[in-house]
Amino acid sequence: MRNSLPLLFLLLLTTRQWAGAQTQSALTARQDKVSLTFALAPDGRPSYAVSYGPKPVVLPSRLGLAFADGQGFDGPLTLVGSDVKDVDETWQPVWGEVKSIRNHYQQLTVRLRQSAPPGRLLTLVFRVFADGVGFRYELPAQPALQYFTVQDEKTEFNLPANHKAFWIPGDYDSNEYTYSTTRLSEVNSAGIEAIQLKSAPQRVQTPLMLKSDDGLYVNIHEAALVNYPAMMLDVDTNTFGLRSHLVPDALGAKAYLQAPEHTPWRTIVVADNAPAVLASKLILNLNEPTKLTETSWIRPQKFVGVWWEMHVNKASWNYSDVSNLKLADTDWSKLTPNGHHGANTQNVKRYIDFAAKYGLQSVLVEGWNVGWEDWANNWKEEVFDFVTPYPDFAVAELQQYAQSKGVKLMMHHETSSSVTNYERRQDAAYRFMQGHNYDAVKTGYVGRIIPRGEHHDGQWMVNHYVRTAQKTADNHIMVDMHESVRPTGLHRTYPNWLANEAARGNEFNAWSSGNPPEHETILPFTRLMGGPMDYTPGIFQIKLDDWNPERNKGKQVHTTLAKQLALYVTMYSPLQMAADLPEAYEQHLDAFRFIQDVPVDWDDTRILLAEPGDYLTTVRKAKGKEEWYLGAITDENARRQSVKLDFLTPGQRYEATIYADGKNASWNNNPMAYQIRRVKVDSRSTLPLALAPGGGAAVSFKPVSK
Amino acid sequence: MRNSLPLLFLLLLTTRQWAGAQTQSALTARQDKVSLTFALAPDGRPSYAVSYGPKPVVLPSRLGLAFADGQGFDGPLTLVGSDVKDVDETWQPVWGEVKSIRNHYQQLTVRLRQSAPPGRLLTLVFRVFADGVGFRYELPAQPALQYFTVQDEKTEFNLPANHKAFWIPGDYDSNEYTYSTTRLSEVNSAGIEAIQLKSAPQRVQTPLMLKSDDGLYVNIHEAALVNYPAMMLDVDTNTFGLRSHLVPDALGAKAYLQAPEHTPWRTIVVADNAPAVLASKLILNLNEPTKLTETSWIRPQKFVGVWWEMHVNKASWNYSDVSNLKLADTDWSKLTPNGHHGANTQNVKRYIDFAAKYGLQSVLVEGWNVGWEDWANNWKEEVFDFVTPYPDFAVAELQQYAQSKGVKLMMHHETSSSVTNYERRQDAAYRFMQGHNYDAVKTGYVGRIIPRGEHHDGQWMVNHYVRTAQKTADNHIMVDMHESVRPTGLHRTYPNWLANEAARGNEFNAWSSGNPPEHETILPFTRLMGGPMDYTPGIFQIKLDDWNPERNKGKQVHTTLAKQLALYVTMYSPLQMAADLPEAYEQHLDAFRFIQDVPVDWDDTRILLAEPGDYLTTVRKAKGKEEWYLGAITDENARRQSVKLDFLTPGQRYEATIYADGKNASWNNNPMAYQIRRVKVDSRSTLPLALAPGGGAAVSFKPVSK
Repeated sequence: MRNSLPLLFLLLLTTRQWAGAQTQSALTARQDKVSLTFALAPDGRPSYAVSYGPKPVVLPSRLGLAFADGQGFDGPLTLVGSDVKDVDETWQPVWGEVKSIRNHYQQLTVRLRQSAPPGRLLTLVFRVFADGVGFRYELPAQPALQYFTVQDEKTEFNLPANHKAFWIPGDYDSNEYTYSTTRLSEVNSAGIEAIQLKSAPQRVQTPLMLKSDDGLYVNIHEAALVNYPAMMLDVDTNTFGLRSHLVPDALGAKAYLQAPEHTPWRTIVVADNAPAVLASKLILNLNEPTKLTETSWIRPQKFVGVWWEMHVNKASWNYSDVSNLKLADTDWSKLTPNGHHGANTQNVKRYIDFAAKYGLQSVLVEGWNVGWEDWANNWKEEVFDFVTPYPDFAVAELQQYAQSKGVKLMMHHETSSSVTNYERRQDAAYRFMQGHNYDAVKTGYVGRIIPRGEHHDGQWMVNHYVRTAQKTADNHIMVDMHESVRPTGLHRTYPNWLANEAARGNEFNAWSSGNPPEHETILPFTRLMGGPMDYTPGIFQIKLDDWNPERNKGKQVHTTLAKQLALYVTMYSPLQMAADLPEAYEQHLDAFRFIQDVPVDWDDTRILLAEPGDYLTTVRKAKGKEEWYLGAITDENARRQSVKLDFLTPGQRYEATIYADGKNASWNNNPMAYQIRRVKVDSRSTLPLALAPGGGAAVSFKPVSK
Repeated sequence: MRNSLPLLFLLLLTTRQWAGAQTQSALTARQDKVSLTFALAPDGRPSYAVSYGPKPVVLPSRLGLAFADGQGFDGPLTLVGSDVKDVDETWQPVWGEVKSIRNHYQQLTVRLRQSAPPGRLLTLVFRVFADGVGFRYELPAQPALQYFTVQDEKTEFNLPANHKAFWIPGDYDSNEYTYSTTRLSEVNSAGIEAIQLKSAPQRVQTPLMLKSDDGLYVNIHEAALVNYPAMMLDVDTNTFGLRSHLVPDALGAKAYLQAPEHTPWRTIVVADNAPAVLASKLILNLNEPTKLTETSWIRPQKFVGVWWEMHVNKASWNYSDVSNLKLADTDWSKLTPNGHHGANTQNVKRYIDFAAKYGLQSVLVEGWNVGWEDWANNWKEEVFDFVTPYPDFAVAELQQYAQSKGVKLMMHHETSSSVTNYERRQDAAYRFMQGHNYDAVKTGYVGRIIPRGEHHDGQWMVNHYVRTAQKTADNHIMVDMHESVRPTGLHRTYPNWLANEAARGNEFNAWSSGNPPEHETILPFTRLMGGPMDYTPGIFQIKLDDWNPERNKGKQVHTTLAKQLALYVTMYSPLQMAADLPEAYEQHLDAFRFIQDVPVDWDDTRILLAEPGDYLTTVRKAKGKEEWYLGAITDENARRQSVKLDFLTPGQRYEATIYADGKNASWNNNPMAYQIRRVKVDSRSTLPLALAPGGGAAVSFKPVSK
């Protein structure tokens, strides 16, 4: 069958899916090359297919929702009605990669009813964009359906061939994996060390990036994940069918819902070139506009932090080396300090001074609050209180000092995944922040979730993240969530939700086998499809032995220094850390200049060259300025690129400052070799770039008078 | 064996438990007639036995704790050391049944070590009182034990014979059952309709009241239940052995602990007469003294409430009859009122007027806040916000009105068991209370717990109740918890925790088969052993058809009116509701006089006559006054009692006002017939009382001049 694939979906309907039977109906929607067909099979089961021009993207695939009461939408349905409408609108994000976003789609709405009693109603909504499809299940208000429990979602994505896939294991609690690149037939996480939960071997997470042999780039994810668990995908390695697998709760149920309600959008981005996937705004467009009317307090920003020095074993989060403390019973002033607590007043002032001197907006301080002596791996509920500083962290003094320097301190709320504890202290924690002039918080969810049995990616936690986004917004607080579920474009709705980690960040280079050089070329096609990542780029001291020869032996960041600069452009985020230590930057202030210069908010973005797992070159135009910034990165292979600068404003001359890998640089042998040169260019110029193995280049273009 | 029971425990050690083997050691503690012996069997397993004079109370019974890591205390142990000490002290409760309490015990401390690696340490502490025994497991701070998970507690209570038992099923989520009275051999809840969770048929809850054929009254419960699940008991109907069964969490684990830690006290109250069981202060004595230094804001009190009119279908908690609302999305002012919402301003004022007129301190109002349209049975997380009143409940106006009348409004926080929701809103809810002059809250936990998979009686919820007691104390708020775990004497530690429901209250008479007349004679021997109950006595309108003939057909309270009065004395609580409607009381103001008069705090208490399941006569002396109050109740059988008044102060004359069942009164045929008579008495008098079937008598003794 796979070799005799018919080109028209209506013919397809007579193949594998509903062999020998006639369909009841077929409805279509399309936008440019993308078309979607919906059909009810003779057995009443709904299905859809997607094609890109003549090429099938998704073969006929079932849709369905099973309920705990046994009366869900996994049985025969009857078509009640349908309609098609066209939408073409433009909106402006509070911050982002581009100044304005076009939302242009054809929508097919299909209203269905259970053929058997109780005759519940289901609406399927499909939106077809020029770069893909989004669809969701909607459960309208109706007498026969009020409260219900989703036991299973039976959404299929039947792929037409054995695509190349970029995937991570279907862990319910962590997405901090390196990517495996295999054919669908070879998806198997059995040999991969679990970070939290052992995944079923053929279960993978989204965003799932796929590349077909006939030249299509397909990305499967979801948009607007609210009040529902994250969707993972079970891969059939024989048929190349994917099937939704929702993250369960402690009892194995998937979602407790109340009509009217709808699922998140299931998204399929498709293009015939890789850059178009990265340029897609489909996921953002499927999210709700923000309800915030006053957003002037939301500031994209760069920050330094008392953070990397803990990762490189130069300092500690904990104040003392005692273990087995109880939050309520401990007199922290009586503990013996270990002498290398990072978040001490003097050290924090050093970071404030650095931020002030080099124009970075804020300073994150981790380990400022009591509880770090035994915060991890104990599944301990009363772990942090979020308001009590260690004896050597002078809250008021630092507040005053930072204010005098025009720098903001950034709050840190590590929860240790004791989320019940955090929730009951959130009000007090935010009052503390407001009382001490903090307006941004980095949250963390390391470890196993409490309520015990819940998962990071389940409905209960999804609601926690969204509630926290809303609650911080209510308090005019910006938020950056680490170890959360991966994002799904909700930063459109909650623009104070600046970033997430929710993937394997730069930090893994400090204490694991690290991130392979290809890692940063894959992330934009996977994790970043849902939203900005706080990847924490900017590590200059690549070899980490220097900080602590004993404990960091052989550890290093798996890029060149120049590539660390390029990441500020290739990994979009309105919140970018300059992650290294001030003393590391002070050794290379010429290179640090790029971090000082590079914006975190943009009027325009162009993806010039991209191939997942191989390379990525991106340019962006600074918000409200005639400046452009380019980032180019490569995997473990050296590359030469000739970049046409036709994105520059014609007739304007620019000084390009090129931060490039040094001669003979490579990520493993000579990572810190870089060279900086300046050239005058205009829109007719071509810029040659040489990227070292694991290397990159960063370029700033600033206008100069003729 | 059972028939050849040796009298001395040391001989017992060679019987069934460790047949044919010698024990390694035996340690004893005793107080008056009660003695306890601890021994390690040759296999290294610890055990204890209890006797009362020559009579065995608990035969040699194993002790043990199993841990999730497999290295708990269920294997061989070695005796490290032991000591015995005597304690005799007296303390004054903030409120209570008596003015001061003697705490007199001999304590045996046994220090044990695992015979095999890792050689963890366990301490067993036994306290032997004249009226029973308490013991607990203590896990000292030690390098080999920091964080640990209790998977099972293996405490046995091997009873010497087939006692009569008063029991309710081992439901993890509800204790609102009528009591079954059977021999241990006949314990079987298979036929009993579950309220929440179906219990294992031979699993029962504590307090478990037992009566032996040789005249001992034995009560098994626990004291100071903190950071641990409630203990249920599995009954071996062949051997009459009881074994602890801890309520599990969502994953089947029992308790997540951190050393140093200890379990609650396991308590065995024993006496050769029933009144002595009720007089026991053993459970209170095993609780920690309060840490509150300022307690003047804690006021024992009587209250009326907009409450019973909902139970008798005269009014509703909900404001409108729409269902399927969402808290955040609903404009409550736009709903159509159903016309019989109880918590409307005018109606509340009527209760305030009534309370003011008759000297009751406060007015509870249920259904004042939005969310009652579909609050129950939906396992809905966002169910109440605790701060938004219905449109017809004028918060500020009622605050002002109540203050002008010298009456307090009592807050109501029904959580619908969505405890995560309550916890994240508790701070705001208590601020709301303080802003509106509320200083007491009745909480409720109807339905299935969220976090889903947790139980009312599991560790997580136990911690919630205790945390709420502490948090309300921090805010100078008194608390009364309904549908909570049953109490274990924690009101000594948290005297603002005035009462719990945590059993089958009077309300069941309104909408179920009701509470049988014996119910109130059993509760003091079971549920009330742990602490005060908000039973809501004082229903005068016994037949409920009168309120709503259609919906209440055949419903009635299963007592006489006079027995309702007696309950104010027999069921001790510092918080007593006058539960009926003002219009019911206004029909019987002569009888209502007793409710006006009866105190809720006492200097002294005497249990004059008692037999569980049959009858109970109690007298108490008012706090700081020369007044005594007597309550006498019976089961379905009429009884005559001659009460010797030798508790009265010799030489003092009193006017006794006797509120007795009327001629031919009986709970089912003529429940509202009562007679009030006044006689002059002194300490040499004897008062004849005639109790009708399901009846009772209440008497006030006020001093008169000669």
